[in-house]
Amino acid sequence: MSKVRVHISSSLDGHVAGPHQSMDEPLGEGGERLHDWVVALKAWREASGMEGGEENGSTPVVMEEYANVGAEIMGRGKFGPPARGPWGDDAWQGWWGENPPFHKPVFVLTHHERERLTLSDTTFTFVTDGIHSALERAREAAGDKDVFIGGGADTINQYLAAGLVDELELHVVPIVLGGGARLFAGVGPDVKLEMVRVVEAPGVAHLKYRVLR
Amino acid sequence: MSKVRVHISSSLDGHVAGPHQSMDEPLGEGGERLHDWVVALKAWREASGMEGGEENGSTPVVMEEYANVGAEIMGRGKFGPPARGPWGDDAWQGWWGENPPFHKPVFVLTHHERERLTLSDTTFTFVTDGIHSALERAREAAGDKDVFIGGGADTINQYLAAGLVDELELHVVPIVLGGGARLFAGVGPDVKLEMVRVVEAPGVAHLKYRVLR
Repeated sequence: MSKVRVHISSSLDGHVAGPHQSMDEPLGEGGERLHDWVVALKAWREASGMEGGEENGSTPVVMEEYANVGAEIMGRGKFGPPARGPWGDDAWQGWWGENPPFHKPVFVLTHHERERLTLSDTTFTFVTDGIHSALERAREAAGDKDVFIGGGADTINQYLAAGLVDELELHVVPIVLGGGARLFAGVGPDVKLEMVRVVEAPGVAHLKYRVLR
Repeated sequence: MSKVRVHISSSLDGHVAGPHQSMDEPLGEGGERLHDWVVALKAWREASGMEGGEENGSTPVVMEEYANVGAEIMGRGKFGPPARGPWGDDAWQGWWGENPPFHKPVFVLTHHERERLTLSDTTFTFVTDGIHSALERAREAAGDKDVFIGGGADTINQYLAAGLVDELELHVVPIVLGGGARLFAGVGPDVKLEMVRVVEAPGVAHLKYRVLR
């Protein structure tokens, strides 16, 4: 069966976004630094329609993560900022512009119904009946491919706590954020993990785990 | 100059002890599992006067950590449990028995004065005038060798926040503790780190950092 996968950058103090997230700083204070390592990569820049970038020890890690993903589940905050009311008006298309970088079916967890939104080759389906339903629909959309839980922390933590994640990769960045969204909040010792492999790369350590049932 | 070094085992959710630490469970619920990887090692068992054990990818990491340490600083809780009043009676010699595994000068941070205690080749000096004083005394005792900040989390976090640590190694264990003492609590983004190296070993990932001034 297809796998449910998580990969996310974390500070040394366990935050996946900095404190005081806002419209101006969606990743919170200092949170952008979590992604310096990936933004520098040719593999990431190409996937995001940008030129340049380097190849280093992170390249195969990122290529592996991009491969075989058929659908993504994300929280409402990753789709777009909460500051515009439930949906503002229907013209509001989230953070990601006319050509979102997902290029696949995306399922957005929300409490507010909204019609499916298609932008280029990304479809956003808004799911109001919970994480299990979203996963069922994402699995169906993904077919033989895997489902990626794209964040933020709340969404990942809910799937981890429910025992629905198969694979977790942490990109541990040597910064201290001192606050912000915390991975594993509300996730207890029932979650059992097994280390798959560790990769050292410039400015980041990649730690991959299998989540046991 | 000699270095100030920290190395400590951490859960994936950033705890260096489990919840509800007590006399019966000094490392809190599930906290013993943080040290399974090291207790299995021949190098650790020999240093602790025990037989058997294995050699694996963690062996050189531990040998490196044991080398060149001239003094240790620890918190009151690592010396002995708080349940016995300030010091109980003077016969109270802490957690560690007649032959503590430190074999060097140890400086214990405390608010309660007490005479120096010598047990076999370990001396415990009780320091009541703060972390800077304890470090000064530990440096003097260590001579050319390094000073190890032995924990718990509060002690390490105070030294990190004060910018007094040169080297930090995290032994990241693939468990979720769901609560307990947290490394980096109260440590802010002013602390800058640089990754030195990463080692993958059975049941643990060793992440070593230089702390920049």
